Amino acid sequence: MKKHAINRVGIVGGTHGNELTGVYLVKKFEEYSNLIHRSNFETLTLLANLKAIEAGKRYTDIDLNRCFSPQDLQNQNLFKHEQLRAKQIAQHIREKQVDFIIDLHSSTANMGLTVILNKNHPFLLKLATYLSVINPSVRILQYSSNNQTSPYLRSLCELGLAIEVGPVSQGVLNAELFQQTETLINKILDYVEFYNQGKVPHPPKTFTLYKQVAIVDYPRDEQREIKAMIAPELNDYQALNPGSPMFLKFNGQVLNYKGNSIVYPVFLGEASYVEKGIAMGLTKQIQMEVQL
Amino acid sequence: MKKHAINRVGIVGGTHGNELTGVYLVKKFEEYSNLIHRSNFETLTLLANLKAIEAGKRYTDIDLNRCFSPQDLQNQNLFKHEQLRAKQIAQHIREKQVDFIIDLHSSTANMGLTVILNKNHPFLLKLATYLSVINPSVRILQYSSNNQTSPYLRSLCELGLAIEVGPVSQGVLNAELFQQTETLINKILDYVEFYNQGKVPHPPKTFTLYKQVAIVDYPRDEQREIKAMIAPELNDYQALNPGSPMFLKFNGQVLNYKGNSIVYPVFLGEASYVEKGIAMGLTKQIQMEVQL
Repeated sequence: MKKHAINRVGIVGGTHGNELTGVYLVKKFEEYSNLIHRSNFETLTLLANLKAIEAGKRYTDIDLNRCFSPQDLQNQNLFKHEQLRAKQIAQHIREKQVDFIIDLHSSTANMGLTVILNKNHPFLLKLATYLSVINPSVRILQYSSNNQTSPYLRSLCELGLAIEVGPVSQGVLNAELFQQTETLINKILDYVEFYNQGKVPHPPKTFTLYKQVAIVDYPRDEQREIKAMIAPELNDYQALNPGSPMFLKFNGQVLNYKGNSIVYPVFLGEASYVEKGIAMGLTKQIQMEVQL
Repeated sequence: MKKHAINRVGIVGGTHGNELTGVYLVKKFEEYSNLIHRSNFETLTLLANLKAIEAGKRYTDIDLNRCFSPQDLQNQNLFKHEQLRAKQIAQHIREKQVDFIIDLHSSTANMGLTVILNKNHPFLLKLATYLSVINPSVRILQYSSNNQTSPYLRSLCELGLAIEVGPVSQGVLNAELFQQTETLINKILDYVEFYNQGKVPHPPKTFTLYKQVAIVDYPRDEQREIKAMIAPELNDYQALNPGSPMFLKFNGQVLNYKGNSIVYPVFLGEASYVEKGIAMGLTKQIQMEVQL
């Protein structure tokens, strides 16, 4: 057994109540717990926002997955449903001594099978390498946010990641993506088992990381009304070159990308990000060298 | 000029507030009204449910597009937002003497460009033939509901149809589908212009009609909890043969289609139909002979 073994893995679904892939995977794992059983650690499951799941909404008061910053968790003056729920979940994760969180999400954008790493922890980087090797279609994404102020559920543990699958509409259960996500979770649990045995497979030492460097809002008028669509040429994880079409105004005018270097857009047109003022994220493609 | 000319066409968007293709097309047509101008009739535009559009929801109280039955429109005891709005819209359409309604919708299902005919009116059948010829990917769909009790906005006129485009998530504006829908509307307006001139092009005399013959709910348990996903083999408008997979239970068990004849599913997994107890519609493929 490894010195720094992972003793408890938490699989969380329904952090957003209308992202059904995670909701139904957790329900399945709760009914057939043998599926997530491994020899040398315990796996716990959690449906994060039952009230939102029941309502078929992302959230009821505010976005739960923005309620986990240390400041907010310690703030005694926050009383919205999701703010209170975040504190309960944080306490639960602490009491159960969960070492590693897998938070299940879906996107209306064509994210395929995306793994979002909470931070550059060596364990997460090695896991990312492993997953990239056994399924080259898996994308590894990371936000530039400082972990000290991360508002995401996955930041509750030193070892945290989110799985983001798409395209699938809110409120829709897509069998193919459901099965692909289940396989990905299986592979992650297998990896943890290997890791605890000190028998991690030795894949190539690099993987491609998409590092988010900017977010871009829709062009809007003075009333904040959206005045353009995302250009039909854009695709998630496909290179966007300086001077290429980025938005298409309703009168047919094309607005080009004004940056100086190639970026790779993600979460293109994600439905739940419109209210956040986000049309897409822009990432840089980085070849990560991993010390194995 | 034809004897039974069409004098006024109404283009309606936002009957469902989170179906943005129609919402933004109507906004575009209101800004650039020359786009829908034709020589021998007037085109009006309407955003049907502003409150729902603003809230980014399908509806605020109940589904507006189920509030247009003659019984409900005459019922003085219905006071929900959409019930009142339906009466306003019905009065508006009557006062403006609209002859032909085009109601714009989108679906999370892979409906492509679907035209839903309100009834078997010769004008609509000829229009369907015309549209099928100029764009063979256009699908013509019809529900089996008796027009006398139709609850749909499109039933406010003798001549009514809905355009249903997908797949696109609720709250998402997809530029490609937006452009395809705009082109389809242009072709319909062109056809009305030809029709009023008595110069309707003479296309082949048949088209393929998908006639809805049944709706199917998800397999559920006693608590009405969904217990299976739509089988990944199913596709909108693709033949479903007797004995073929229809649903996939979470434990991997396949539930086969038990009907006796080939059907063509539509609205597969449509997000907004889950609450209505609908996993899909089943249609029959009919070759329609049209008297030109």
